[in-house]
Amino acid sequence: PIDGQRLWDSLAEMAKIGATAKGGSCRLALSDEDKAGRDLFVSWCEAAGCTVTIDRIGNIFARRKGRDDSLPPVVMGSHLDTQPTGGRFDGVFGVLAALEVVRSLNDRGVETLHPVEVAVWTNEEGSRFSPPMMGSGVVTGVFTLEEILDKVAQDGARLGDELVRTGYAGEAPVDHPMHAYLEAHIEQGPVLEVEGKEIGVVTGAQGQRWYEVTVTGVEAHAGPTPMRLRRDALVAASAMVQAVQRVGLETAGDPCATVGILDVHPHSRNVIPGRVFFTVDLRHPNADTLADMDRRFRAAVAAIAEQNGVGAEIADFWHFPPTPFAKPLVDRVREAAGGFGFSHRDIVSGAGHDAVYVAGKVPTAMIFIPCEDGISHNEVENIAPADGARGAAVLFETLVATAGK
Amino acid sequence: PIDGQRLWDSLAEMAKIGATAKGGSCRLALSDEDKAGRDLFVSWCEAAGCTVTIDRIGNIFARRKGRDDSLPPVVMGSHLDTQPTGGRFDGVFGVLAALEVVRSLNDRGVETLHPVEVAVWTNEEGSRFSPPMMGSGVVTGVFTLEEILDKVAQDGARLGDELVRTGYAGEAPVDHPMHAYLEAHIEQGPVLEVEGKEIGVVTGAQGQRWYEVTVTGVEAHAGPTPMRLRRDALVAASAMVQAVQRVGLETAGDPCATVGILDVHPHSRNVIPGRVFFTVDLRHPNADTLADMDRRFRAAVAAIAEQNGVGAEIADFWHFPPTPFAKPLVDRVREAAGGFGFSHRDIVSGAGHDAVYVAGKVPTAMIFIPCEDGISHNEVENIAPADGARGAAVLFETLVATAGK
Ligand SMILES: NC(=O)NCCC(=O)O
Ligand SMILES: NC(=O)NCCC(=O)O
Repeated sequence: PIDGQRLWDSLAEMAKIGATAKGGSCRLALSDEDKAGRDLFVSWCEAAGCTVTIDRIGNIFARRKGRDDSLPPVVMGSHLDTQPTGGRFDGVFGVLAALEVVRSLNDRGVETLHPVEVAVWTNEEGSRFSPPMMGSGVVTGVFTLEEILDKVAQDGARLGDELVRTGYAGEAPVDHPMHAYLEAHIEQGPVLEVEGKEIGVVTGAQGQRWYEVTVTGVEAHAGPTPMRLRRDALVAASAMVQAVQRVGLETAGDPCATVGILDVHPHSRNVIPGRVFFTVDLRHPNADTLADMDRRFRAAVAAIAEQNGVGAEIADFWHFPPTPFAKPLVDRVREAAGGFGFSHRDIVSGAGHDAVYVAGKVPTAMIFIPCEDGISHNEVENIAPADGARGAAVLFETLVATAGK
Repeated sequence: PIDGQRLWDSLAEMAKIGATAKGGSCRLALSDEDKAGRDLFVSWCEAAGCTVTIDRIGNIFARRKGRDDSLPPVVMGSHLDTQPTGGRFDGVFGVLAALEVVRSLNDRGVETLHPVEVAVWTNEEGSRFSPPMMGSGVVTGVFTLEEILDKVAQDGARLGDELVRTGYAGEAPVDHPMHAYLEAHIEQGPVLEVEGKEIGVVTGAQGQRWYEVTVTGVEAHAGPTPMRLRRDALVAASAMVQAVQRVGLETAGDPCATVGILDVHPHSRNVIPGRVFFTVDLRHPNADTLADMDRRFRAAVAAIAEQNGVGAEIADFWHFPPTPFAKPLVDRVREAAGGFGFSHRDIVSGAGHDAVYVAGKVPTAMIFIPCEDGISHNEVENIAPADGARGAAVLFETLVATAGK
């Protein structure tokens, strides 16, 4: 029911903005590139006859009228921001598949009972500004607007100022009404590809706990300071990185444990590091297991700090529990995939998505498509055009069934 | 023979430039603060009747005429630049003790046969620009002027441009003649303090090997990427940091093994690191043992890379072999210390100093004084005023004996 070539062409057009050397995209949230991507998206939505609204956290909602326009909209969407060395599909695919659904509704002259909207959520990646999923988190009351506007980027910029600078500090209130929410996304992992499935029917997302750890030792000269007298913050922190890895390797089920950022102070070749800052990201589909990973992580950090004669402080940075999606809507996704004869399987999302926060407010479901080698958050991220078309088709069917005739 | 209070006051005055929150100094090489420190030093030298020359790498030589001014000068000196969170004595003590010797020669109307000079060497620390000991390395032919002028700082500045900007791109040629070289310095380690010795008679410096290691894994999403499929560059690099520490702990004698810088790419909380860069600094007084440390370090990095399915490249960055000082001059330092009745011991320098490079060209010796808790390259670095005065007195005696009457 959709035009796969048009979808593919739009993906290619968007990928030109912030294109990186190795074929990926860099559109960090509220950067010049993110603004250019948003502007292109808005121009496409207006060309498709939609009315565009920006809310106070910079989320974009492009609306196609419903037969009863007083009803709350069925919203489809995802994000246009990327990681620093991100890919061409993470987020973008969900936004442009949703736009393709609207274009196809137009082509076929399909009227829906509920209005239909395409949403672009602000800063899903959580890379330039952290935590992730800010736009959807503000709309669903997980964060206050004020705390998020005051977030400061790694580069020193304030989020509220960047919204104004890029022209996306909108006027609309942040309690956007929604009837249901659908998000298409690349899997970002290897399961569908390995099992040869065309569609992932996402039953929910695994829980996440993010931390910030600060290790404090004693700076001293790398030459005349005997090994036995050192309190090297990096030696301790590197043992902690190993411990985080072990927490991941030694947990049953599908655990994840990652250190993505590690900063050394004073950052000089001949100074024993006096302070190290690093981030930790623990994930598991099961809440009890995630709590157990949390305990083992904390115990390991404390023991390593003690052994190395250094201080270690763990700060909770962000978390959400394992989050199931709405069963009736998930069933509808499975039926749509089956109806087209696409091979499919139920799957738990390893990543957080705006859908996770929205699921706390309205019935929500997600559709996954395979990505090459399961790689994402990498410039080489790739999909097969036919997989993109299949995902958009399932989104179309699920949308029409949910928005009503 | 010297004025300990005047020396102490000058140290305190200099420490006001680039003073840090915790009582240390930050005068990174060729920064605004380094320029201000140099300017103050030059004004003091001129007030003491010296003629000041700047060479093309920015080294400062303040000259007090000799009875036979055609003879090459006996040079005393050290450096005024510091680490990012450096102390008030590392380098500065040697420069201002030398200035105190000149002031005392003036007070007493002592004439020397050879002219006497105080040298300030450019960028000894090797922190902002690396490697260390650049000014003395250019003068002694270890580095070419051209390669050093083209060095680029962590902050992106070019060394040659910073010389011009700060007004220290001098005209004098870089093959400065010297009859002998004497450098007073804080020990930067705990030995003198622990043993209750007032003066360290430095017989030479241990050898150093510096490396840069780049670990290459595969960036991927921290959520949906199973632990077993990861090629996490930081997990591998942290095992390498542990291995470097073991090389240090498991070597006999007085080994040092340090990782001072470690940078993670792409530096995002939810991306498995795809690349890690880190620096390694290995030291030992014995050349064969240092070569053995080098072998064990390389083997450990290769084995860890293999185990973790990542790439690892080791680049040699800088090195110098264990370097003995000139026996007759070292004997003179020992005699001067003994003559004053100061307790002393022979000691090998754990740090590199400009004296190491100068020792390759002219007879060289160093005088160490104790520093509190053996701590340096740290804002809390401290000395007892009486130790400073003793070091300057030994420098005075050795200088007079070397420069002749
Ligand atoms: N899809 C995605 O990368 N979301 C950001 C939050 C997470 O790391 O799971
Ligand atoms: N004294 C000093 O810090 N010199 C720099 C070279 C080294 O790290 O040994």
